Amino acid sequence: MQLRNRQWKIAGRPVGRDVTEADFASDEVPARAPEAGEVLVRVDLLAFEPAMKGWMENIGGYVARTEIGDVMRGTAVGTVIESRADGFSPGMQVVGPLGWQDYAALPASDLRPVSNPARPSDDLGVLGLVGLTAYCGFKAIGQPFPGDTVMITGAAGAVGSVVAQIARIGGCQVIGVAGGPEKCRMLVEEYGLDAAIDYRAADFAAQVAAHAPNGIDVVWDNVGGTILNTLLGHLAMRARVVICGGISRSKTGGMPVGPENYFNLVFKRATMRGFILHDHEALFDEGRRRMAGWLAEGRLIAREDVQHGFDNAPRTLMRLFSGANVGKQLLRLDHGEEQA
Amino acid sequence: MQLRNRQWKIAGRPVGRDVTEADFASDEVPARAPEAGEVLVRVDLLAFEPAMKGWMENIGGYVARTEIGDVMRGTAVGTVIESRADGFSPGMQVVGPLGWQDYAALPASDLRPVSNPARPSDDLGVLGLVGLTAYCGFKAIGQPFPGDTVMITGAAGAVGSVVAQIARIGGCQVIGVAGGPEKCRMLVEEYGLDAAIDYRAADFAAQVAAHAPNGIDVVWDNVGGTILNTLLGHLAMRARVVICGGISRSKTGGMPVGPENYFNLVFKRATMRGFILHDHEALFDEGRRRMAGWLAEGRLIAREDVQHGFDNAPRTLMRLFSGANVGKQLLRLDHGEEQA
Repeated sequence: MQLRNRQWKIAGRPVGRDVTEADFASDEVPARAPEAGEVLVRVDLLAFEPAMKGWMENIGGYVARTEIGDVMRGTAVGTVIESRADGFSPGMQVVGPLGWQDYAALPASDLRPVSNPARPSDDLGVLGLVGLTAYCGFKAIGQPFPGDTVMITGAAGAVGSVVAQIARIGGCQVIGVAGGPEKCRMLVEEYGLDAAIDYRAADFAAQVAAHAPNGIDVVWDNVGGTILNTLLGHLAMRARVVICGGISRSKTGGMPVGPENYFNLVFKRATMRGFILHDHEALFDEGRRRMAGWLAEGRLIAREDVQHGFDNAPRTLMRLFSGANVGKQLLRLDHGEEQA
Repeated sequence: MQLRNRQWKIAGRPVGRDVTEADFASDEVPARAPEAGEVLVRVDLLAFEPAMKGWMENIGGYVARTEIGDVMRGTAVGTVIESRADGFSPGMQVVGPLGWQDYAALPASDLRPVSNPARPSDDLGVLGLVGLTAYCGFKAIGQPFPGDTVMITGAAGAVGSVVAQIARIGGCQVIGVAGGPEKCRMLVEEYGLDAAIDYRAADFAAQVAAHAPNGIDVVWDNVGGTILNTLLGHLAMRARVVICGGISRSKTGGMPVGPENYFNLVFKRATMRGFILHDHEALFDEGRRRMAGWLAEGRLIAREDVQHGFDNAPRTLMRLFSGANVGKQLLRLDHGEEQA
């Protein structure tokens, strides 16, 4: 039987503006049969991340260029349909760079079995790049110590919520910054943060000051812009500011606005550093092992926002930039009758 | 009324051997009246620490020399009897370098009021040099991260037990090393450590290996010698080894024996560092503030070993080197009829 393979391809470059549906075009081709050493995988669950906008813009220079007409890249969990490689057999759940399509034929070296078949989505979140970004950046740059005041922007997002929970495990005073009362409630009641601040509140800056009477020891910033600037005005001596993301830039075009308070780094002997996850590969095994342990103990929870249907892939990506998602943004594909 | 002032003076230098009672001589003189800017203090509670042996030996070069015939130095809590300085009035509880005697007349600049008059001994332990040694060394050198395996020698002692509790607050896997089943029981049941190992056990090395299947991320060493050597054989990659003390040397004479496993620092890209508390004065306010908070919350407990009577001062010091003390070693002076 010939498998139909729906695909979403890059049709536009969202430079200096938001991502829109018009930046993608759908197509349908026959699924390619696996060659020797390859595995044919059905795509079940796609993961979305803010960096995808950067990939479409070809900024940063640390991932391979994208071209108009390429199948959109994306990490996903899938099920092996046919294997011509050792170690993979039909029915096995795997994770890898499957892309926005129904089926992918890839070299076996690009795939690995999911860590926990009962919760395969963990490999797209807390045990995947999301969790490792949180773990490695917080360890290598954040350097938390018990009693530190840690403030996290985008705290209800996939990376932010993991950082917040590791900070809580680490005996820190943890304050999340998020948009809207529902996310703030969730941060305190579900994730166990000490406090949460709604950045849309008129007295946002006053709340930041009130929650950090001795200053902020670690800022984890996913957002940039005026929110980061406010936090930089309240650093503790020798603070560490981890620049993980700048999602606010999607609203302003180009890069986030510059933080006028950067010079407080001098007065406070503070450090502001960005990082690229792949510089910290030496920590991956340790991070996966510890986070899997915390998940099993219930000390780390990973909330997911699961959308449904192949047609919704572009709109699901756009949820990240509108702030609609809570936790890791995923899309479950519907494979229709051919999977019955 | 003329106050009688009993004193213990240095009479011997315990170089290359244990401290003995013969290293001290008692004397009695009239208490000196305070001059302008000075305060006369009655000594109530003396604190003891292993470094006192080093002071008597004049080793290390980082404190002022002692001379035979000097009143033995020591930090203590006392009560103001007479003040000729602003800010101090009779009855006030103060802490300072009062020495092994009934009364001390000192410049007001050497004294400060106790942090919490209801628990004045905190300033001799967890809010004094003991707690600051633990806090500053663990923060600056130990650099713990949630999930780290932390192993502490001398874990039932004053510094070790504070390090262990901060490590526990910090979400680490905390294993104490101590002498005898009673101290090990206390570490687990009272201080909440994950495990404790009796270094006198025949299978000590095997227990260390069993409790650190992924290696030790932070070693806090108060002991040196063969115990340190065993731990160095079980380091995790990028481990930090904090050398705080070497109390085992009092048994061997001279310095602790060299650890043959030191070269594991290379294979594990590990760091071994000593420190002098006064290099970290910038952390003192923060450390006192956070530890006072943890004390108030009941997350940090400070056990004390209180002996009684002026005559027992030398024997109380010797308790540190025999391992008799559990927690901070203190001596309460008995002032007899003149205080009635």
